[in-house]
Amino acid sequence: MALKDLARVARNDDGIALVLGILKQRFGERFQTGTALRGQHAHTTTYIPAQMPDGVLFAQSADDVQAAVEVCAAHRVPIIPFGTGTSLEGQVNAPGGGISIDVSQMNRIIEVHAEDLDCVVEPGVTRKQLNTHLRDTGLFFPIDPGADASLGGMAATRASGTNAVRYGTMRDNVISLDVVLPSGRKITTAKRARKSSAGYDLTRLMIGSEGTLGIITQLTLRLAGQPEAITGGVCPFPTLEAAVQAVITTIQMGLPVARIELANTLQMQAIIDYASLDLPVGPCLFLEFHGTERGVAEQSETFGEIAGDLGGGPFIWSAHEEDRSRLWQARHDAYWAALTLRPGAKGISTDVCVPISQLADCIVDTETDIAEHDLVAPIVGHAGDGNFHVLLLIDDTSREEIAAAESFVERLNLRALAMGGTCTGEHGIGQGKMAFLEMEMGGAVDVMRSIKRTLDPDNIMNPGKILRL
Amino acid sequence: MALKDLARVARNDDGIALVLGILKQRFGERFQTGTALRGQHAHTTTYIPAQMPDGVLFAQSADDVQAAVEVCAAHRVPIIPFGTGTSLEGQVNAPGGGISIDVSQMNRIIEVHAEDLDCVVEPGVTRKQLNTHLRDTGLFFPIDPGADASLGGMAATRASGTNAVRYGTMRDNVISLDVVLPSGRKITTAKRARKSSAGYDLTRLMIGSEGTLGIITQLTLRLAGQPEAITGGVCPFPTLEAAVQAVITTIQMGLPVARIELANTLQMQAIIDYASLDLPVGPCLFLEFHGTERGVAEQSETFGEIAGDLGGGPFIWSAHEEDRSRLWQARHDAYWAALTLRPGAKGISTDVCVPISQLADCIVDTETDIAEHDLVAPIVGHAGDGNFHVLLLIDDTSREEIAAAESFVERLNLRALAMGGTCTGEHGIGQGKMAFLEMEMGGAVDVMRSIKRTLDPDNIMNPGKILRL
Repeated sequence: MALKDLARVARNDDGIALVLGILKQRFGERFQTGTALRGQHAHTTTYIPAQMPDGVLFAQSADDVQAAVEVCAAHRVPIIPFGTGTSLEGQVNAPGGGISIDVSQMNRIIEVHAEDLDCVVEPGVTRKQLNTHLRDTGLFFPIDPGADASLGGMAATRASGTNAVRYGTMRDNVISLDVVLPSGRKITTAKRARKSSAGYDLTRLMIGSEGTLGIITQLTLRLAGQPEAITGGVCPFPTLEAAVQAVITTIQMGLPVARIELANTLQMQAIIDYASLDLPVGPCLFLEFHGTERGVAEQSETFGEIAGDLGGGPFIWSAHEEDRSRLWQARHDAYWAALTLRPGAKGISTDVCVPISQLADCIVDTETDIAEHDLVAPIVGHAGDGNFHVLLLIDDTSREEIAAAESFVERLNLRALAMGGTCTGEHGIGQGKMAFLEMEMGGAVDVMRSIKRTLDPDNIMNPGKILRL
Repeated sequence: MALKDLARVARNDDGIALVLGILKQRFGERFQTGTALRGQHAHTTTYIPAQMPDGVLFAQSADDVQAAVEVCAAHRVPIIPFGTGTSLEGQVNAPGGGISIDVSQMNRIIEVHAEDLDCVVEPGVTRKQLNTHLRDTGLFFPIDPGADASLGGMAATRASGTNAVRYGTMRDNVISLDVVLPSGRKITTAKRARKSSAGYDLTRLMIGSEGTLGIITQLTLRLAGQPEAITGGVCPFPTLEAAVQAVITTIQMGLPVARIELANTLQMQAIIDYASLDLPVGPCLFLEFHGTERGVAEQSETFGEIAGDLGGGPFIWSAHEEDRSRLWQARHDAYWAALTLRPGAKGISTDVCVPISQLADCIVDTETDIAEHDLVAPIVGHAGDGNFHVLLLIDDTSREEIAAAESFVERLNLRALAMGGTCTGEHGIGQGKMAFLEMEMGGAVDVMRSIKRTLDPDNIMNPGKILRL
């Protein structure tokens, strides 16, 4: 198979026709088949064409989900779970048609257990909604992938983001899931205890399975205590290598940095122009420390020393929210600033993740690649994890540019794999990276296939994603 | 099935006879069938009788393991992975006989990547061996289950221990595993990047599978930076509730406590007598903070205030290694001190884990249960996780006492489950807790069974553990 071959999903027209009728009758207005709405549920942020589902169910409860899955299972019709549609590798596309189950109306925060630092939510609750709800509890949910994604979707794609370096990823912050399996059966993957060694870790099996093993209908999440104090700041470096070395030293010293984000020279140029900032054009790190007042001040000072030893700095930081926000504005604006580098172009974000010791080499080689192929593609990275994103600015109506982007992604992935890295740190496999998953995992992909076939023998749950069966 | 029914594993005498011959020929002196050695590989720390394997292979490489598994697979003979034999729920017992594969000679530390804070080791490396090796690197491996267990065994049982509250469990600290599957095929579950969202999380599927899905032949582990400073100390409380409330407040405030251990009144009485300590007899917390000098001092002071507000204290702490060790000696001696409560008795350790809000109730109810049934059973807990251990001191030659212990364990597990907890926080299911796993997980156990049957259709990999098939 070629690297860019998608998984083929045969279309079951008869089954789909039957299911459309049954779901319409059962759910009335909550089941929609209009083209615009179906289109909204199949948008993709990749260069893969949108593939619409045949209908969209707005589920309001686990019972709704279960009923719909049972109908689809009986007629072997694909199901595509949908949260907010912010996934980045075609996870909500419907290559064989079928039913999009939209859980955005399942957005109740069911319980907050402040003493246990956990909460129970429905899958359509977004991270911002949850944090707004938690504001007065002294707690917060720390995973921040950028987009205001649904928590169900974040679990399904094993999302992480800017403060994974301190708080971990969705893998680490989900205690338990309710999942409707392809059979229509609902299971709970764990109790609410903070740890357990009871049997196979089904919670982690579901996290990152991108809806191919079931639909998440409830989540129990770990919460963190809101830090007493936060400092944030920005620090320029003469070279990318120096910036990455500062990251390595910071982590080796055990400085509990909450965010440590890297932007490369092109990205900084865009940011500086976009926001009229007074910073040198060159690689920059954006940092945030969480802790006690004295603790974060001490950590910020220590980081300033690390940066200085490497020829970087000054590290301009502040404990005041307004100043912090201003210093971080550049990072927050990275995407919008990047778009100005090529007005009218579409931004396609791709990610890889390598051991941190390889991060500078991997980014420098990627910058060379970008230059050699006349691409416009700034880079930002969650440097503490060795994870970085390339935003390809392309004319997505041009076949040549799409082909060039595909070739670039292929080279990027091969480069990351050759350095001991993974083809995706946080975006997932979706439709676009199946071939790279196979290269990365070798025979282990067969184990994944065995599990998929066992739990979903008719391949109805988000078919055409993760695995070419 | 009754709660205490073990899984039956039919004995395949013909297959075993064949395999014994083949392995003897292939491995010579490294394959042993003497009774004493087989007995050492089947000892159990539970009340379940020892069940010996038919032979013990001392594997020296993944190739050895693969070759042995292929032979066993061809003749449908059970394989029982063995590290140091410190598991606590009968994980190394051989209910249907078969071959114990002892990996203790696979004890090479293959690579240390200081810049990436990770290392690659063989499964027989013990945690103390690894930490001795790392001493001069500024790094350490933080998981400490007490015993000097093998890292392969720790991964297989999803071990944790005293500093899981800060550093997580084996779930969080394994990056990748090499595993020989029941088919004899070897897979690598992940690349060396610190995070990935590439496909199903096979690493986590293997962690905690207790050797029932494969044998671990290599591990890539996350390391932590050795803290610049450590403080440790001990803090008495008037009541168990006050001690647990101090734990909850500490964690809610986001104090990054590295260890926060609870001992109940009986345990403290034993400790105080054993070590002639000058402490009031009552519940106690033992704490450790890791960080910068200023940071740990600040945190220790803050904890002292929390304790004081709850009527506890004084919190006696020190940053000097010798003093810390002295203050923590009581905790380290807990097991030996406990044994003095009933000289000659065998200590059987059992564990459950509940949401922290339930911890005080669960322990108090358990103390009442212990008193009502005239048992001698002190309690220590990894309080920050809601995990606690009861050490039952019984005469293991007495059928009545074994029956009483079984009944107690049953009540303890039902109590933890009723409080939203799990039947094991860190010891695993093994042979002893299969019925409780079924009660805890309901239909999810069927998903575990599906996975087991798919990956191990002949049920040769550590049969009779975790799942009653």
